[in-house]
Order: sequence, then structure tokens, then C-alpha cells
Amino acid sequence: MSTPSSLDVLIEALRCLPGVGPKSAQRMAFHLLQRDQRGAARLATALGHALEVLRHCSRCNTFCEDEVCARCASPQRDASQLCVVEMPSDLAMLEQTHSYHGLYYVLMGRLSPLDGIGPRELGLEKFLGRACDGAVQEVILATNFTNEGEATAHMISELLKSRGIKVSRIARGIPVGGELEHTDSGTIAQALVERRSL
Amino acid sequence: MSTPSSLDVLIEALRCLPGVGPKSAQRMAFHLLQRDQRGAARLATALGHALEVLRHCSRCNTFCEDEVCARCASPQRDASQLCVVEMPSDLAMLEQTHSYHGLYYVLMGRLSPLDGIGPRELGLEKFLGRACDGAVQEVILATNFTNEGEATAHMISELLKSRGIKVSRIARGIPVGGELEHTDSGTIAQALVERRSL
Ligand SMILES: [Zn+2]
Ligand SMILES: [Zn+2]
Repeated sequence: MSTPSSLDVLIEALRCLPGVGPKSAQRMAFHLLQRDQRGAARLATALGHALEVLRHCSRCNTFCEDEVCARCASPQRDASQLCVVEMPSDLAMLEQTHSYHGLYYVLMGRLSPLDGIGPRELGLEKFLGRACDGAVQEVILATNFTNEGEATAHMISELLKSRGIKVSRIARGIPVGGELEHTDSGTIAQALVERRSL
Repeated sequence: MSTPSSLDVLIEALRCLPGVGPKSAQRMAFHLLQRDQRGAARLATALGHALEVLRHCSRCNTFCEDEVCARCASPQRDASQLCVVEMPSDLAMLEQTHSYHGLYYVLMGRLSPLDGIGPRELGLEKFLGRACDGAVQEVILATNFTNEGEATAHMISELLKSRGIKVSRIARGIPVGGELEHTDSGTIAQALVERRSL
């Protein structure tokens, strides 16, 4: 007499989404089944397809459908500068300023000991390999100015300096505790100009 | 140089979830791809399976994997009483009381003119067919006491009375264990109106 099992399984599966508890998973399941079966089918397909084709660019680590993404493959970009960001959305924010023409490295996260994300989980070895490939003259750290972003910048800076690579940090024009994603592009551009060597 | 299309498609597809805007769709996509690919695969499968096997019970309209759900098929339930609720979660709340032994009808929503949900979209014809099948002696309206739930109860009540079927509404009043001091005056007023002689 209880919930049909396929509905239970769906409600449980929706809880893998960040910030979705049992009540909102139930609400989402009812909504999809009752009001938006087409959207639900599209979501199932999109998830399956994304899992199948998306991988990480072997150069910058962002999501990409090829071995190397278009940006990393472009001869237009200045290969001597490598800007480190936490997420693809941060990269997009920097690109919107049109004031940076180097390459990127996307960490896909930040150091977060409480969530069990240390240097190994963050894949800092892959990053070091990229940063020390010979072409990079300067690494610009553009992680967020949160505690975790600062700790990440600090660790990367130490690792690079011990390898003799020039490191800079975008300027603290961004409010302490603020995130790139919620900052206007003028402020971000200013922070790039005022980066200081570490 | 923009987002890979399969990622864009996934972010867009996630927006079919209720309450999910562009920013949280992006956050969800990154989380699934970066931190929980297994959960994402499970979700894709669960969605596809639910869409394939779930349908509405031909008697009570709730989600079910068969033509008629186990509750409607049970000879243990009193077929003379039909309790109308908005959602399967409401049915579950009533069942938890162990104080009702009749059958149910699940509207799968409520009248909501602003969202374009009128009597037709709510499928009131299917409900009327069920309520007027000859076995039902009393319809108990257990829609919510919100404006929309009240309007839904009112319309169903009018439709049934014109067909000569006995209709009742679950009582409004002060909750068990509730204190007058912490009850809103509308509820107290209603509890006065609906007082019963002892
Ligand atoms: Zn790349
Ligand atoms: Zn049923």
C-alpha cells in the first residue's frame, strides 16, 4: 500500500542534487511526473549524454568534449600566463572582462579539509605538471577570497615558488569573503591589473 | 570558446526542476559532473524508469505501476467513503493517523487559475466518474485550508451536491496540543463557528 518503488527510487535519486532534502525531492518528483514529463525526459537524456561525452581538458582541466578545449588550442591566447580559478563559472566571469588574454587552469574546486578535499583530491599534481611545462612564465591566482580560496592560493603559491615559478594573486579589489561569480566585471578587471607578485 | 554544448544542455534541462534558476542549475550540473557522477547516473536511470512505468491508478488517480493500486484493490477498505486529497503526500499523512479506512481520490493538484489549472486541467471529470460510481456514500474533502485548497473543495462540493452525493469537509480548528495564545485569530474564529455540542 506504500509508494510505488519506481517513485521511491526517483525521490531518493533526486537527493543527489545539492541542497535537496526529502521534502523537496518529493515535490520535484511529483512536479516532473505530473506537470513536466517532457522536461523530465529531457533531463534524463541530458544527464546521460553529459556523463557520456564530457571530460576534462587535458590542459586546463575544464569540462570539455575533446582532449583539449578550444581555448587551450587557440594560438590567439598568450601561453606565458596561466590563470588559476576554482570553477568554470569563475573562468567565464574573467573572460567577460575582456582584459585577460592568457590561458587558464580550472581547479574544479578548492581545498576544503572539512569536505575531505586536500591537495590530492583537488588534483594539484596535474596542475603542477601544467604550470611547469616550460611555456608558463607567470601563474595568476584567481581563486575566491574566501577562507578556502585563500588557503588554496597560499598552498599553490608555496608549491610554485619552490619550483622557481613567478606567482601573482589578483588584487584584493574583490571584497573579503566575496565570490567572483557575484562581482561586477569592472571590479574583476581592476583586480587583474593590480595583481601583486608573491 | 564557450561552454561545451552537452553541459549547456544539461544546465538548461535542470531548470525544469521547480525552484531551480540558472545559477543553481549550473551549481547542480557542476556538482553532479565533478563530485557525484554515480548519483547523476542513478538519477538519469530513475527518471527514465519512472517515466516508463508510472501511471495513475484508474480508481484513485495516485501514482502507481499497475492499472489499479493495492489500496483501491483491497477488500479491507470501506468502499462507501471516498476522501479527496490534493497530493499523494497528503494521502500518506492521513494514512499515518490509522483513523480512516475508506478509499481515496488524489487530485494531483488543486484549482489554481493563476497557473492555468482549472477544473479541466485538474481532471475533475475523472473524479466525478469515480465519485458517482454507485458504491460511494460520502465524499470527504481533505484538500488543504489554503485559498486554492478551499476553492477546490468548494467547487467539488457544488458539483457533488448537484448530483445528490453527500459531501463533508474535514474540520478546521485549534490543533491538538495547541494553545489559543499561539493560534491565529482566523483559526480561533473558525473553531468558534464550527463548535460542536457536547
Ligand atoms: Zn582547456
Ligand atoms: Zn488507487
